[in-house]
Amino acid sequence: MEENYQLDNTDLAILNILMHDARRPFTEVAEEVFVSPGTVHVRMRKMEKLGLIKNAQLQVDLAKLGMDITAFLGVYLQKSSLYDDVVTALKAIPEIIDCHYTTGAYSMFVKIVCKDTSHLKNILHDKIQPIEGIERTETFISLEESINRPLSLPKH
Amino acid sequence: MEENYQLDNTDLAILNILMHDARRPFTEVAEEVFVSPGTVHVRMRKMEKLGLIKNAQLQVDLAKLGMDITAFLGVYLQKSSLYDDVVTALKAIPEIIDCHYTTGAYSMFVKIVCKDTSHLKNILHDKIQPIEGIERTETFISLEESINRPLSLPKH
Amino acid sequence: MEENYQLDNTDLAILNILMHDARRPFTEVAEEVFVSPGTVHVRMRKMEKLGLIKNAQLQVDLAKLGMDITAFLGVYLQKSSLYDDVVTALKAIPEIIDCHYTTGAYSMFVKIVCKDTSHLKNILHDKIQPIEGIERTETFISLEESINRPLSLPKH
Amino acid sequence: MEENYQLDNTDLAILNILMHDARRPFTEVAEEVFVSPGTVHVRMRKMEKLGLIKNAQLQVDLAKLGMDITAFLGVYLQKSSLYDDVVTALKAIPEIIDCHYTTGAYSMFVKIVCKDTSHLKNILHDKIQPIEGIERTETFISLEESINRPLSLPKH
Amino acid sequence: MEENYQLDNTDLAILNILMHDARRPFTEVAEEVFVSPGTVHVRMRKMEKLGLIKNAQLQVDLAKLGMDITAFLGVYLQKSSLYDDVVTALKAIPEIIDCHYTTGAYSMFVKIVCKDTSHLKNILHDKIQPIEGIERTETFISLEESINRPLSLPKH
Amino acid sequence: MEENYQLDNTDLAILNILMHDARRPFTEVAEEVFVSPGTVHVRMRKMEKLGLIKNAQLQVDLAKLGMDITAFLGVYLQKSSLYDDVVTALKAIPEIIDCHYTTGAYSMFVKIVCKDTSHLKNILHDKIQPIEGIERTETFISLEESINRPLSLPKH
Amino acid sequence: MEENYQLDNTDLAILNILMHDARRPFTEVAEEVFVSPGTVHVRMRKMEKLGLIKNAQLQVDLAKLGMDITAFLGVYLQKSSLYDDVVTALKAIPEIIDCHYTTGAYSMFVKIVCKDTSHLKNILHDKIQPIEGIERTETFISLEESINRPLSLPKH
Amino acid sequence: MEENYQLDNTDLAILNILMHDARRPFTEVAEEVFVSPGTVHVRMRKMEKLGLIKNAQLQVDLAKLGMDITAFLGVYLQKSSLYDDVVTALKAIPEIIDCHYTTGAYSMFVKIVCKDTSHLKNILHDKIQPIEGIERTETFISLEESINRPLSLPKH
Repeated sequence: MEENYQLDNTDLAILNILMHDARRPFTEVAEEVFVSPGTVHVRMRKMEKLGLIKNAQLQVDLAKLGMDITAFLGVYLQKSSLYDDVVTALKAIPEIIDCHYTTGAYSMFVKIVCKDTSHLKNILHDKIQPIEGIERTETFISLEESINRPLSLPKH
Repeated sequence: MEENYQLDNTDLAILNILMHDARRPFTEVAEEVFVSPGTVHVRMRKMEKLGLIKNAQLQVDLAKLGMDITAFLGVYLQKSSLYDDVVTALKAIPEIIDCHYTTGAYSMFVKIVCKDTSHLKNILHDKIQPIEGIERTETFISLEESINRPLSLPKH
Repeated sequence: MEENYQLDNTDLAILNILMHDARRPFTEVAEEVFVSPGTVHVRMRKMEKLGLIKNAQLQVDLAKLGMDITAFLGVYLQKSSLYDDVVTALKAIPEIIDCHYTTGAYSMFVKIVCKDTSHLKNILHDKIQPIEGIERTETFISLEESINRPLSLPKH
Repeated sequence: MEENYQLDNTDLAILNILMHDARRPFTEVAEEVFVSPGTVHVRMRKMEKLGLIKNAQLQVDLAKLGMDITAFLGVYLQKSSLYDDVVTALKAIPEIIDCHYTTGAYSMFVKIVCKDTSHLKNILHDKIQPIEGIERTETFISLEESINRPLSLPKH
Repeated sequence: MEENYQLDNTDLAILNILMHDARRPFTEVAEEVFVSPGTVHVRMRKMEKLGLIKNAQLQVDLAKLGMDITAFLGVYLQKSSLYDDVVTALKAIPEIIDCHYTTGAYSMFVKIVCKDTSHLKNILHDKIQPIEGIERTETFISLEESINRPLSLPKH
Repeated sequence: MEENYQLDNTDLAILNILMHDARRPFTEVAEEVFVSPGTVHVRMRKMEKLGLIKNAQLQVDLAKLGMDITAFLGVYLQKSSLYDDVVTALKAIPEIIDCHYTTGAYSMFVKIVCKDTSHLKNILHDKIQPIEGIERTETFISLEESINRPLSLPKH
Repeated sequence: MEENYQLDNTDLAILNILMHDARRPFTEVAEEVFVSPGTVHVRMRKMEKLGLIKNAQLQVDLAKLGMDITAFLGVYLQKSSLYDDVVTALKAIPEIIDCHYTTGAYSMFVKIVCKDTSHLKNILHDKIQPIEGIERTETFISLEESINRPLSLPKH
Repeated sequence: MEENYQLDNTDLAILNILMHDARRPFTEVAEEVFVSPGTVHVRMRKMEKLGLIKNAQLQVDLAKLGMDITAFLGVYLQKSSLYDDVVTALKAIPEIIDCHYTTGAYSMFVKIVCKDTSHLKNILHDKIQPIEGIERTETFISLEESINRPLSLPKH
């Protein structure tokens, strides 16, 4: 558990706006938070120095780009201790965008985006299941994404 | 399945750069893709008009902000047909950042970010489980996030 | 268990050919089974009278017709005794092509053919899950059909 | 995902009739679809050339032929990557009429038709379970087939 | 836990013989246990008085009598507290020969003997599943009974 | 499936009486079935010759004999094909009184009678789990046996 | 997550000794920790004031007192939101010594100590399962307790 | 099953008081049980000689000491027969405070106390999962401990 930085509600309000739309000009952010644009600038620089801010990511409409299927994989390892090697192998598969070491029935939980069921079959069969250490995978296909949004940071 | 827009590899290369870092100046993007900055500009405008681009999101280090726990919830509904009402109720809980209608054992799959186990207990017990239509939830806690990255769009 | 008719190996050989290709001319069948075309005719008429033969079905390439997804559904009933009513309701859904009352974890096992994941979502959410008596469904999506053929009747 | 052919509603109506009864004369089909018999002929030839039509299969009453048991098998592989070899081995067992590579708990899903529980035991124990790569099978026995019919192709 | 009666090894030896074959004459039993026939008589009377001996049951070959299927049912109750009422209802079904209140996934565990899959379907669907309080049953069909014998009482 | 012998209702009535109490004198049986004692004698000899009758077994009160625990074991094999060897090994354990090859989640289903939890631990840990081929067992303990009776053979 | 008190290694060493044996005289504790008995006294008073120390509990040999069975119960609630009422009802059952609200398959996890399987049956059937809100319980019986000890607090 | 000692209700009453608070003076205990302090003394000495009393353990508030997470582990062994070796290895991990050999889905059931999810990840990944013989673990995290108390011994 990492040390928590002492942010005030102004910091949090600025983050919440930019986490939802990173391209909002600082003048607009300032107006919404009731501070001067200079304050937004100073606070952002401070939070960047503290390592609280990573980057901004352009969000695209994956379905319109032909990536129709989002799938979740519960992964059973042959031995749970093979986790590190399996992560390394999974990183080489670009369709995998998320991977967690989890409690519960599965050793790992993986998120995949791909074109269609035949593409999914290829990723599972040709790329993931041959990985040394993976015993079995259980696939859940998303039939609809009903919520997908950044966290709204709670105020103090 | 939605209609796929005819993007060329230049479009895809531009998107891939900005999906990983939305704040890269177009001049840098242009250099990396071997086109003029004007071309980057034109292509982005076209893709925005086509509705392919949604927004940019500032990424923060949630753990450093005191949000230590990421949890996944498999949700069993009392009747699967209550899905729409349950989604509406879940949207009012800010700690929920992802929700899918899924095949497999669970009706729905939900992602939560919160502070600690006591915060998680409150969200589950006070906010999620009282929702009309939810029968039972099965919680997987992430003990480590080993991959979290945007999709790399495959070239043609 | 129904009474077994006393078929000889000639009967079985004729059936095996026509179960794989119902449009084979009787002369070809006769040649392959080493009997006269008249014998094929007589045997077929006998087996039709005995009710052993139902009909012939044209097989099409479903994927080429835009039906990309085959899914299996394990159905949990609110009470197993609601089975008959549920079957009646399922019969009204044309995408369902198979339904069994089964031993094991599920009360019923259902096979669906549909266009894509969004079509599947509609069938599940709008047609199947609202059926009175269905508590929950568990969906398995076929990522590849590797065998699909008529039974080869064993000789005596 | 394969390219979808541009069929019109006349094509689909013809197919729907013949998928339910392949031996209906074209004159009857034509009458039902309100076209000339020649049109049925032309359309069928076109669809055959396009590879949309595979063959016709005689349907028999399996129970009356002494094949009393239909069973479904969820197959767990020792490693999911052994799928191809296992399919090859399964193809040599005539009682297996269907096999799918599936998402969900099982790697593969198989359909079997056999005479009685003792015949089923022999297939499982002597033929399927010795296959290199199969770890475990979970059998669901059909106690009643309540729906079994061709897909009704949806109109445009 | 009931009080254990102080049986000696002679008592146990006599019981073990008769539990395997109740029709063995006492003279034969006596010879095998190295006591006089009178002793066997005295011991048996004592054990009958103590209520240790219930009765003798003729064992028949159920398969040869046309009862081909032995099935086990894991029973889920709507509420576990309905157990007593459900037992009363199950006793009225002659095909049920064993019923236990169990730890583990199921509330109850039931053994059934019946003729064939169609008979099993009728018992499940018409007799067991309509019982008030039974939510769901999970059926395991025995494909072979490889051991079925009386307990061999361990010596002191 | 074995050939069914043509028994009449008199045969069945005689069996039903003796399956519940093998020591009933033939005169009593005859009276109850409304035939002469000679008829009972003849029928029984016939059924013994046909191999329909196996033996009689003395039933004892296992709890009063200090055998307090009845447990059921679902057995997972390392490979289902090891079934035969495992049966042979299980036969050497006298506390096992029943063993079935089953459909469903488990490869085998086993019934054990023993003294107490510590005795059960020894059987599981020292005798059953070391058997070559057994991967894992899942134990259900009977907390009450509410039905245990011979089958009542149905009349024609 | 509660505030952590700043204990030094002397505090932790004292606690570790007394958590394993609360009746050790402070002079012995002092000697083992290399401080004066007065220091032990002062530290203990401080930690008691801070609320770090609850009480001491006499440990008895439950098996020798006739409590042979330790069982764990996974509890499924009819609705997870009924948790608080169920806890209140469980507190009135003296055989329950531990209860947790848990992630994973069960809503709650309960530990029971009782005399024998018949006592366990009574607790489950007469006391726990009738509680309003409990749908189903899954019981795991401990066949051996191989570790049971206080936590050894880690040094700084 | 061990021999039960003949304790009277005075013995049980004394134990019940001290099991809840081992530091109560014997004079107080005597008053509450309506006997003389000497009687308490004599009874305690007798029960200690009989081995009924083990020790007293100081109870601390683990959360206030920074141990925020209590987790339960269901352990699957590669072979159940490896249990003894695994217990030996688990004993070397101080965060494990309880371990049982259990019936049901898991071979073993383990209780862990640790600081936070990252500490839990280290124990699972670095200490428990590398143990020879452990195939997989399934973790349940306690989100609230609602009951934790000594057993109240039932009177005669």
